[in-house]
Amino acid sequence: MGHQETHLYREIHAQPTVLANVLRVEAPRVARIARYVRKRAPCYVVIAARGSSDNAALYAKYLFGTTVGWTVALATPSLFTLYRRPPRLADALVIGISQSGQSTDIVSVVREARQQGAFTLGVTNDPRSPLAEAAEEVICLHAGEERSIAATKTYTAQLMVMALLAVHLAEASSMVEALHRVPDAVQACLQQGNHLRQVAERYRYMHTCVVIGRGFNYATAYELALKLKELTYVVAEPYSSADFQHGPIAVVADGFPVFLLAPQGTVHPEIHALGERLHARGAELVIFSDVEASLALARVPVRLPVSLPEWLSPFTTIVLGQLFTYYLTLAKDYDPDHPRGLTKVTQTL
Amino acid sequence: MGHQETHLYREIHAQPTVLANVLRVEAPRVARIARYVRKRAPCYVVIAARGSSDNAALYAKYLFGTTVGWTVALATPSLFTLYRRPPRLADALVIGISQSGQSTDIVSVVREARQQGAFTLGVTNDPRSPLAEAAEEVICLHAGEERSIAATKTYTAQLMVMALLAVHLAEASSMVEALHRVPDAVQACLQQGNHLRQVAERYRYMHTCVVIGRGFNYATAYELALKLKELTYVVAEPYSSADFQHGPIAVVADGFPVFLLAPQGTVHPEIHALGERLHARGAELVIFSDVEASLALARVPVRLPVSLPEWLSPFTTIVLGQLFTYYLTLAKDYDPDHPRGLTKVTQTL
Repeated sequence: MGHQETHLYREIHAQPTVLANVLRVEAPRVARIARYVRKRAPCYVVIAARGSSDNAALYAKYLFGTTVGWTVALATPSLFTLYRRPPRLADALVIGISQSGQSTDIVSVVREARQQGAFTLGVTNDPRSPLAEAAEEVICLHAGEERSIAATKTYTAQLMVMALLAVHLAEASSMVEALHRVPDAVQACLQQGNHLRQVAERYRYMHTCVVIGRGFNYATAYELALKLKELTYVVAEPYSSADFQHGPIAVVADGFPVFLLAPQGTVHPEIHALGERLHARGAELVIFSDVEASLALARVPVRLPVSLPEWLSPFTTIVLGQLFTYYLTLAKDYDPDHPRGLTKVTQTL
Repeated sequence: MGHQETHLYREIHAQPTVLANVLRVEAPRVARIARYVRKRAPCYVVIAARGSSDNAALYAKYLFGTTVGWTVALATPSLFTLYRRPPRLADALVIGISQSGQSTDIVSVVREARQQGAFTLGVTNDPRSPLAEAAEEVICLHAGEERSIAATKTYTAQLMVMALLAVHLAEASSMVEALHRVPDAVQACLQQGNHLRQVAERYRYMHTCVVIGRGFNYATAYELALKLKELTYVVAEPYSSADFQHGPIAVVADGFPVFLLAPQGTVHPEIHALGERLHARGAELVIFSDVEASLALARVPVRLPVSLPEWLSPFTTIVLGQLFTYYLTLAKDYDPDHPRGLTKVTQTL
């Protein structure tokens, strides 16, 4: 079987279509929900999610902060399921994100919040799932069935739903327009496949690494690290550039691989400065950027083919990261569709 | 120089005294602050912190949830410092935690929150620090100067402050009494030093590992992983048992080292079940527990010498973890007082 016939390859490459679908089909519903939520004026937002969906929640944390000025708390499901001491949520907007809509803990948070009188929103790929039933309103991912175990197209679809929601909550029409540039930008990233295939070979024997982003791309750091762990079994640890300097930087010695997410924007100068510091320590730097000075620091530069506004760069950085991970999986002779020890739907309490 | 003359050794062993000091000196102040905060009835709590202090914030997230039913959001300082788009905080209780009280990003969050009219609380070891000046009220750690770069006594002092605050907010007098058992329990853990010294030898050549806890000990997982990274340069990644099963478990193959925090309590059955699953996969398990069945699963059992209520077990689990890390640092011939590339006060924006 040619590698292009794997589910994972096809799903990575389906992303421009999926993202265009989400924009086309869900925008009117999201606009209506946003009008309703604005009227209710929640004090803060609580998001319940696991795995890749939790990384989409991290993106929302920064996006809701910068656009509508709302604080986002990531839920602690064990307070609902194990400790049975759910916090008060009546004044919050509560969002559950789950590809399958099956995860018992996520559904529990949404169900409890709705009983308390909070406005609840489910974001899922399955409109007939328990999550969709539990939530007052549902936004669908329109990704088609996701057959590979590692989430790709549903992750970027979740980012798109969060972005749509934030810009409609902020009534920022110019930002709505910018969203329509995303499917083409993702398509341009997919054309970097051959380059990333060559690049990945070098990391055949990499066993551990660190992935660093900040602000909007803090989510990308988590999601890229998760893909690397799921598919290549590399112990990849995600960090913000600030947290990394509060202790963990001690692990970096000569040749230690660090993946740095450095698209242009507000946090770029800080990420670049960390890149210089790591370069001086002899780290092996793989840098995803559209800034020449940052690419020049890298042992392996990964150029972003399109420069989006910073708040949209997580779409392009993660797609390049997915391709890198995909080809590293092949370079290590692992099966991209059957990671060891994982199943598609993970049930946790 | 004998190893017992290192700052780190002395500071680990000072913890019973420091904890007793915090209880004795700060309890009346915390009780007064708690009465005031209850009257203001905040919608939710925002905590700003970095490094070990951020791990103390994770403990507070579970403790505030179970005791007073408040949702805790961990602040995203870059929204305040880099993006300059601080979220609305007027309805929140905002807490800044910093050993030195110097970190610019943490001080920024507290200062902005106070300007917005939120009640702000600083938790720091230096009552004359910028954080202490920025916050409306200050609670001190009474740890004396912390000279080793890796935080130990200030971390458990922060846990104690968070615990004092939560139980006073909840007006739970029986929980206040339970807090007084902590200094002696920590003292009993310190008597396990010789055992942990022997245990640590086995991990001389460990380069990566995973540390798993849930609920109250999710904080311990983060803090133990941070100590391992700072002092032994092991790439140690922390997880909740639930998140770990949503993908990262794929990294576990035969002999992969997993540190499991499994004290008795509400989340114990779930942690124990994960231990069984990892045992079946051939993981090398180091299990911190006071439950015989869990200790029996371990390649290396680390017995908790005293059984505290679950919400207090993070004091004993981390002290045993600090001792393990300390002796592993010596086993690897590293200098516990001078980790490479770190300074005591880390300035980030």
